[in-house]
Order: sequence, then structure tokens, then C-alpha cells
Amino acid sequence: MELNAEQKAEIEALRADRHQTRRATVAGLEEILYEPIPVLDHGFVRVVDYMGDDAAVVQAARVSYGKGTRQARDDAGLLNYLLRHRHTTPFEMCEIKYHVKLPVFVARQWIRHRTANVNEYSARYSILDKEYYIPAPDQLGTQSRSNRQGRGAILDGEEAERVLALLREDAERCHAHYAEMLNESDDGKALDPGRRGLARELARMNLTLNTYTQWYWKIDLHNLMHFLGLRADPHAQYEIRVYAEAMLGTLERWMPITYDAFVNHQLGGVRLSSGALAVVKRLIGGEAVGQEESGLSKREWRELMETLGREG
Amino acid sequence: MELNAEQKAEIEALRADRHQTRRATVAGLEEILYEPIPVLDHGFVRVVDYMGDDAAVVQAARVSYGKGTRQARDDAGLLNYLLRHRHTTPFEMCEIKYHVKLPVFVARQWIRHRTANVNEYSARYSILDKEYYIPAPDQLGTQSRSNRQGRGAILDGEEAERVLALLREDAERCHAHYAEMLNESDDGKALDPGRRGLARELARMNLTLNTYTQWYWKIDLHNLMHFLGLRADPHAQYEIRVYAEAMLGTLERWMPITYDAFVNHQLGGVRLSSGALAVVKRLIGGEAVGQEESGLSKREWRELMETLGREG
Amino acid sequence: MELNAEQKAEIEALRADRHQTRRATVAGLEEILYEPIPVLDHGFVRVVDYMGDDAAVVQAARVSYGKGTRQARDDAGLLNYLLRHRHTTPFEMCEIKYHVKLPVFVARQWIRHRTANVNEYSARYSILDKEYYIPAPDQLGTQSRSNRQGRGAILDGEEAERVLALLREDAERCHAHYAEMLNESDDGKALDPGRRGLARELARMNLTLNTYTQWYWKIDLHNLMHFLGLRADPHAQYEIRVYAEAMLGTLERWMPITYDAFVNHQLGGVRLSSGALAVVKRLIGGEAVGQEESGLSKREWRELMETLGREG
Amino acid sequence: MELNAEQKAEIEALRADRHQTRRATVAGLEEILYEPIPVLDHGFVRVVDYMGDDAAVVQAARVSYGKGTRQARDDAGLLNYLLRHRHTTPFEMCEIKYHVKLPVFVARQWIRHRTANVNEYSARYSILDKEYYIPAPDQLGTQSRSNRQGRGAILDGEEAERVLALLREDAERCHAHYAEMLNESDDGKALDPGRRGLARELARMNLTLNTYTQWYWKIDLHNLMHFLGLRADPHAQYEIRVYAEAMLGTLERWMPITYDAFVNHQLGGVRLSSGALAVVKRLIGGEAVGQEESGLSKREWRELMETLGREG
Repeated sequence: MELNAEQKAEIEALRADRHQTRRATVAGLEEILYEPIPVLDHGFVRVVDYMGDDAAVVQAARVSYGKGTRQARDDAGLLNYLLRHRHTTPFEMCEIKYHVKLPVFVARQWIRHRTANVNEYSARYSILDKEYYIPAPDQLGTQSRSNRQGRGAILDGEEAERVLALLREDAERCHAHYAEMLNESDDGKALDPGRRGLARELARMNLTLNTYTQWYWKIDLHNLMHFLGLRADPHAQYEIRVYAEAMLGTLERWMPITYDAFVNHQLGGVRLSSGALAVVKRLIGGEAVGQEESGLSKREWRELMETLGREG
Repeated sequence: MELNAEQKAEIEALRADRHQTRRATVAGLEEILYEPIPVLDHGFVRVVDYMGDDAAVVQAARVSYGKGTRQARDDAGLLNYLLRHRHTTPFEMCEIKYHVKLPVFVARQWIRHRTANVNEYSARYSILDKEYYIPAPDQLGTQSRSNRQGRGAILDGEEAERVLALLREDAERCHAHYAEMLNESDDGKALDPGRRGLARELARMNLTLNTYTQWYWKIDLHNLMHFLGLRADPHAQYEIRVYAEAMLGTLERWMPITYDAFVNHQLGGVRLSSGALAVVKRLIGGEAVGQEESGLSKREWRELMETLGREG
Repeated sequence: MELNAEQKAEIEALRADRHQTRRATVAGLEEILYEPIPVLDHGFVRVVDYMGDDAAVVQAARVSYGKGTRQARDDAGLLNYLLRHRHTTPFEMCEIKYHVKLPVFVARQWIRHRTANVNEYSARYSILDKEYYIPAPDQLGTQSRSNRQGRGAILDGEEAERVLALLREDAERCHAHYAEMLNESDDGKALDPGRRGLARELARMNLTLNTYTQWYWKIDLHNLMHFLGLRADPHAQYEIRVYAEAMLGTLERWMPITYDAFVNHQLGGVRLSSGALAVVKRLIGGEAVGQEESGLSKREWRELMETLGREG
Repeated sequence: MELNAEQKAEIEALRADRHQTRRATVAGLEEILYEPIPVLDHGFVRVVDYMGDDAAVVQAARVSYGKGTRQARDDAGLLNYLLRHRHTTPFEMCEIKYHVKLPVFVARQWIRHRTANVNEYSARYSILDKEYYIPAPDQLGTQSRSNRQGRGAILDGEEAERVLALLREDAERCHAHYAEMLNESDDGKALDPGRRGLARELARMNLTLNTYTQWYWKIDLHNLMHFLGLRADPHAQYEIRVYAEAMLGTLERWMPITYDAFVNHQLGGVRLSSGALAVVKRLIGGEAVGQEESGLSKREWRELMETLGREG
């Protein structure tokens, strides 16, 4: 990811500026405010604003529970309790805003999370730069045999080279033809004065799905954790997971206590069906249970054994 | 509205504290941050946090339109354009959080706006204070004859006195019985050691709908304007309108340019059906149009004449 | 719950009518369509419309997974898999609409679920009947000592009688004064021609929170299961839980396969934090773990032991 | 748009099947249920389920207004009143489900409407067919000079031929390389046994944005009208507008009375700012107002003159 001189200057100006505020302020997050965190080959994620801190969640919970929480436990205990019991509304009281640069096919997965606010760069209005994602060689996974939506072993040798060459050539060619159809130079003049140029809203359809786009994305803390729970998960596609992982780092800076509770209860936690719970109880009781006596399907049994770190 | 000494001290402490931040900061709103604005007889609304400013909306719009807005018009022109053309997403990029104290029957209307985050004081956990709303004498409207959901002339004399007495006595008695059923003193001991006390979640059902509750309420700027457009409207019930009006004042401090555009385009704007627009065109053309030739129903005609400030 | 003659006739007419449709139709749900299921002393819940069936969820999943699910497992296996892995969107493809009559304090909890559509009877427009909820004697719980929001032992003897009398008298008196302030007879005339009557939107504030209201409530299957997971839970207040339980019965009729998967994975399932999972693994390994070596807080330890059905 | 034999048979089977139901049923919509309506060169939209009818909206409104609407106006009058006064909740009580096949760049605009349920064909799981959108020659608009996001005159001659050739060749080549990288035949075997094949979730990034995808899309009537109000508007991009227009036809079949009210109040209606309304009043009063005395910006003035069908 390279920023041009203008962008760098803009970020430096924003970072140099300081204001007095009465609002809750988080020093750890202020440190990196506006700074792009590189993701993939040309992408980034950066925090551009935030509202609230760990104490704001506690404060919201105490409004709900009123005097009921006065004598209460400490903040970490309360935040853990809230997450464990799915009292999610106090976490909705904090908000964060990101600026993200990401490939279109990643944006298409990301946007499925509807409880967020988005402003995306519009290719109806403006021209997209020639920037596209090419996987690193160690990410060229084959189709997984066991998991219909996952990757298996890594391609190498000639096949890998051929794949990288195809991705690069097609993205280059498609963008070159996009620019040709548009027939616009940077200052808005026609490149070829003999042609009129195709409308931007049409020409864009020739771009490949690894083209980079960007957006502002704003979300509350509860829904952010839901998003990270799904997208920082090992089953998520690598290309979105790396964004989620970068954002986990920003969450840790922003909300250190909530972050710990989140890692413990959601990210590292598991759900057991009533059938799986029954099996767990029998195992704890010392019984030797196999799949056939378990009442679980083969698939659910295998997943449970994995969760428990046991040979099936 | 009276705050107790503890609450006053808490607010003063929050207001005295200053932090350095790199975030967009709005001096006009900082001035009143945390300060309760009195509404009705015991209610209030106060801003407890915010994120973004007029420039943040502009910034989000420029991300969407990219270089397309570079040569562009000034900020006020852009904000007006966005509102006029229902480009609402840039306004979702800002957020505000209120602490509100309000009667239960007002809370029941308010909560119908779903695109907001809420933490309400829970009467399952905690005991509600004896605070209830009694209308000021000049608000004792009779049932409107023309508008099924509005108020007409003001009651006076004996009837008004009787109404005020009934409201006051019933609220007092119901709260006294609530406290009796709970059988709890402030320090959690039984008032009458011979009784066990009814659960809070049950006893509360004896309270009247004018009892005050409170909540934290957080919303983005677009949805705030939608809320204010409906609730600061003359057709809204007075008891929720006064909250909306107090919040309009906070919007003006927070987002002066957006506020002006909102007042012009939404709050003071009107919608015309295609039928009404056809009538307007004929009137401008100098034609004398009456309801019968208008193609409008009597009701829509009357509403249009009102909009245009004409005798029907 | 008693319906008047007019309501009974309306329901009978709807039930007698049959139409031909090409849509997915569920015989088990059609059987009870429109019929009120009694809840509490005067409430009810009844299904008034629905869209989709178990096969529609499967169909939506197969659109997502395309040929990927062709060779696939059977429907029950697929529905279980979807729920276990939080692939929730196919469940959003079905919709159900209820008509519910419920006390105001229950409606206030219920409405917190925002992802539903609601039309509530408006006391600004219309007059509320004199119907209020009085708990059955075996529901007069005392405040729980261990759980700040729960009920403990049941009141009896004089204290119970006193509570019931207070609830009844206050509801009666408040409604009588409401009617007096309104000064309207059933045909819209003044009861006392010497008075003008208070506006409905004001008079309603004198009612107690156990007054019955009613609404149409429409929700998709995914969000319905989320609602039922929280409200059919033993920690939910009894007065809303009985509605959730009645609705569970309608879910079983509507979506028998999804219902089984829901009961197994969500309603009867549990969530374990990573700390709790570590304890479970040690217990299965035969280790004797106590709270102090567990790394869990006392509270989380107690909850885990309860989940596992063990003495702490 | 061509369906294969299997798809045709499936649709025929669904259409041949009839069930008895007690639910509200709309004959006009049943007629076309499941039938694809062709849109663009390979796309379609078809209604696959629905819930409610005009009377269900009226019924929901009557629950809200209670006895208040008994003596009331007829259904059409009520539906018009509701739309005119933004009483939107009764329209949320009806629901419709579509199956849509559409180019990816159209899907990216469409998904911005968040208040809907979506199941999209997943290119992580399954392989996308070689189907892409090529504009008809009369849709090859140049970039508009007056409107940054619109189209102007139509390209023709050599430039048009060149554009069509580029779009076609790039889509073909990108899909061919996609298939080569996947290295999968229809029966899941390797095309070239010497290669292992790239994971589907990666290979898809080589496709162009005019590739067709498909989804199930479910929405309530209120939000459908909001969507159609924006997307059937002349300012919407042609490629999404044709979908909205096809859906307008399904709305007319489904909800004839609501459809008329929608066309009158929303689709054909206009919004005037308070500044524009002041100008309209002066014009009706016979005053000769020009932009300079109007208090409007040049742009708003031009838009108002257009709305009123006048020379500026």
C-alpha cells in the first residue's frame, strides 16, 4: 500500500492537530488515529473516529440496572457478565469509524453485515485507479476436498506461476480497456479527441473483482464484535480475515477490558447443542462414548471431538 | 427537574475534565456537554457524547463521489444537495448519544424509532422513584373534533382542577402501593419485617403511565433528523414534541450547516403528490381551480390549501 | 380471555374461507390460523399470516451454495448444519405475523426486539377497554435474593391477599378516572354534557402498566428464533415467557424440522467461554478441578457447574 | 435469458401445484407466481412468495387506530392518507420474496438497501456460469456533461463497435481463465489431471463485474416502495432501473390500490424545501420571480423550474 504525497500530507495534518474535549478519550487509540494499517498488497484499514470507551459500556449498563449495580463487582467482572449473558445493548453505546481500502470481492462479503453505515467510493462518479489484488504465493490455495468453501494445499511450480500470470494479465488488460473506453485524462479532457468516451457507470463493468475500492465504514461495538467473531474466525476467507485481524488490534487499543472479555467469551468460546452437552456430561462422568452411542450425526460428532481436542 | 447532590457533583466532575484528542471536536456542543436541558416538569435531555461534525459529512460524501467533487461547490451547497436528493448515507457517519428522562407513555412512542440504540433503566432490577408527569394547566387539551389524534381547546375551571387532582392522586396512590408491595427501604432492608415483599418485576405493574423513566439513547445523524422531522412536527403529541425541540437546539450547536439544510429541506419542506403538483401548476398558470375540478379528495384538497396558505 | 360476539364471528368467517394458492402451505399451521391461544388472564397470541416452510429455508440455502449442495445431505441435516454454524440468512426467508394481546409492561420488554414490524393499538386515537392483568396467586413471587431480576418464593396468606387487592383496586380506580376524564360514551357522545372531556392522548397517562394493549407483530424466522431463545429462557420474566412458550407451539406446527434443530442447538444449547472450555477438557481428562484452580471467577464457575449439572 | 430444461420443469411443477389456504390470496399475483420476467440480456426477476394484500394493510392500520377508523373512509382513501402522512408501519405488514438474476455491478448497488433479506449464490461454494451482461447498442451512453453520474448521447459507429468488442472479449477471456484456474469439470473431476486447481474463492476474483449472479431477496412492502422510489427514478442507472420497472409491474398485480397511491404520492410526487415552497406561493400569487430574487441557489432554482415544468 502506497499513499501519494497529498494523502500523506492530509493524514499528517490531521494527526498534528489537537483539540480539547470533555468526551471520553482513549490514549491508546489516539496514538494510531488516522494511520493506515497495511492489509494485503494494496489495502489498508485505519480508524478515523470513535466514540466511547470501556467505562461508557459500564455506564450504560449501570443506567439499565440502576441502583442494582451499585454495590457491584468491578468493571471487568461486569463486562464479562454482560457478554456471557448476551446483554448486548450496553455495547451498542460505543461507535467506531474506519476507512478501508479493499478488493471488490472482499467488499461483497463484508457488506452482508447490514447493521453498519457505509459510504463507498462511487465508480459512477469517479474513475477507479489501476490497483488490484494479487495473492501472495503462499496464499494460492487449492480447492479444499473436505470443506466446500475452504482452501487446501498451496499451489506451486508452474501451476502457481501460470495462475499469478493470468490474474495479473487479466486485471491489467481489463483496466487498460476500461481507461480506453472512458477516454478521459486526469484533467477531464478526452485522451483521443476523436472519441466521445463511454459513461463511467458502464465502463466499470469491465473491471475484474480483485480491483480495489474503498469506503468509510461505521459500526457500534456490539455489531463490530459480531462481525469480528465471524470474520476473524478460521473458517472465514483469508482475504477478509486479515482485515478482521487488523481490526482486532484496534479493538484491543480502544477497549482493552471488553477486548479480553470478547476473546474469552466469543472469539475463543464455543457453542454446544443440547445433544453435544449430553455427550460432554457423559465423558466427564468417565463413560466411553463413541459416535454411534452419542446420538450425534457423524459430522456433529467430528466437530465436537475437534472442539474438545480429542481423537474422534 | 431537580438533580440530587450526587448527580450534580458527577456532572460537574465530567464537565471539569478536559482531554486532548485528534478527533473532530465541536466547541459549541462541548459547551453544553453533559448538562441537562429541562423538559416537562421533571424530565430532561442531555448530550453525553458525540462523534463527527459538519465536515465529517462532507468528508464521507467526498469519499463516495471521489474526484468527482473536487472542483466542487462549497460545503453548505453540498450538504443541501445531499438532503434534497435523499443521499442520506453521509449523514449516517455522525453519531450522538443522549441521556433522557421522560414519562413512560412518551417512551412508548419514542421507542417506535427502531434505528437507535437504547439502554433503559430497568424496573426489574431497581426501584423507580416517585416522579410522575402532571401537565401544566395550559396543556390540558380537550379531544380535538377535527383530528382524531389531536387536542383542541384547553380545559379550565372545575373540570381542569378535577383532572389535575385525579392525575396527581392516582399517581401518588399507585406509587405508594408500589412501595408498600415492594416492602424495601433504601438500604435494601424490609420496611415491615413481617412481610417478604413482592418482586420488583411484578410490583412495577401498579405504576401509572406518567411515571418517569430514563434511558441512554444513541442515534446517527440521518436517523436523528428523521426522528426530529416526525416528532418536532406540529402533529406530534406535545409531550414528545418538547423533547424533539430541545434536541433541535443541540443539533444546531452540533451541526450548524446541516441544521440549516435540515430546517429548509425537511422540517420546513413539504411533499406534493403528483395530483397536488398538477393543481399547483394550474394555479401558477393563473387558472381558478376548485376542489371539484382538482382531482383531489376533499381531505387532500384541504391539506394542499393549508400548505399553500390559501383559503380552500 | 373472552372475545365478544363480533370478534368471534370475524374469526369464524376468516377460518371458513378457503383459497387456492400456488404458495408453500403448511397444513399444521393452517389448522390453527386466526385462532387465539389464551395467555395470562386476558391475553392471547394468534397467527394471522405466514410465508414459507421448512423447504423454503432449504431452498434459500441451496441458492447460496448452488450445485455445492446437490449431492447433499437430507433437509434435517442441512437445517441443523445451518443453525450450528450460524448461517442465519436462509432462515430470514420465512416470515410470520401474530396478533397479540398483552399487558403494557410486557409490551415494553417485547418491543426491545427491533428487527420486527409492529402496529400497536393507539390510545391517542381510541379508548382502551378496562382490561388489566392480575397475576395468578401462584405467580406472586417475592424478590429473589440471589438474582437481582428474578423471583423467589411465592407470597401467601394476608400479604398475598393484600397485594392482589391493591393491584385490582388501583387498576379499577385508574381506569374509572380515565373514563371520567375522557367523558365519552361508546357512541362518542359526552357522558356528562356539562364537561368537555380530556384528550385521549392525555387521559391514557392515568392507566396502570398492567393494562392490556394489543398489536400486530411480524418477524422473520431467524429473528423469531432469536426472540424465543431469549424469552422462552428460564431467566425471562414469567409474564413474557408464557407468550414465548405459546409461540414455540406455533413454531413447531409451522416448521417441524427447524423447530427440532432450534431446540437442540439454540434453546437447549449452551455457550462456553474459552476458559470454561479449558475446564471441561480437564474434567474430561479426569482431573479434579476446583474453582480456585479453574481460572474462572466464582460466578462463572457456579454457572458452569450448573450447566454441567454438577455440585460446585 | 434462457432457462435450461431442468429449471423449466421445476417452475412448471411449482406452478401446476395448488394448495388450499386460509391466508389472504391475490389472484393477479398467483397468475405469474414463479414465472421469470426477463430483464437485460440474461437476467430475470420472479416472485416466489408473498404475504398479505391491500386489505392486510388496511387491517393493520385499523388495529392501530382502533374504533377510531370504524366509521371511516374507504380503503383507497385510507391507504392514500397513510402514504401522504408517512404512517409507514401498516405497509410493513406485507412481505414479498423475489428470485433475481443480475450482473454483479448491479447487485453492488442493490445491496445498499439494508432492510431486506438476501441469499446470494456463493462463488466460494459453487462455480459461476459463463454469463455476462453486454449493453444493447442503444444503451451505450457517453458520460453526461451536466450530470456527473449520468449518461448522455449514445455512442455509435466504430467507437460503439470497439466498446462492445472489448466488453465481450474481456468477459470471455476472464471467464475462460477462471475455468482454467479452477480446473474442474462439471462432474467435479480435474479437467487437466496434471494440475490441482485453484480454490473457487480465489479464482472468482478474475471475473469481470458484468458477470451474472443471482439471489433470493425478500422485503416488506414499505421498504419495497422505498427501493422502487429510488431505483425506478429516472436518475437511477438504467441497468438497475429496468429491474425496478419489472418489479413495479409485480407490485401493481399484488397491491393494486397501494400501487396507485404509491405512484401518486411517492413515485410521481415531489418534495419542496421551505425556500421552494415560498417561491411557489409567490408564483401562484402572480408575482414574476426570477432566480436572483428567489433566495434559491442556481441549482435548486433550476431543479424547481424543472419540477414545475417551466422555463427557468
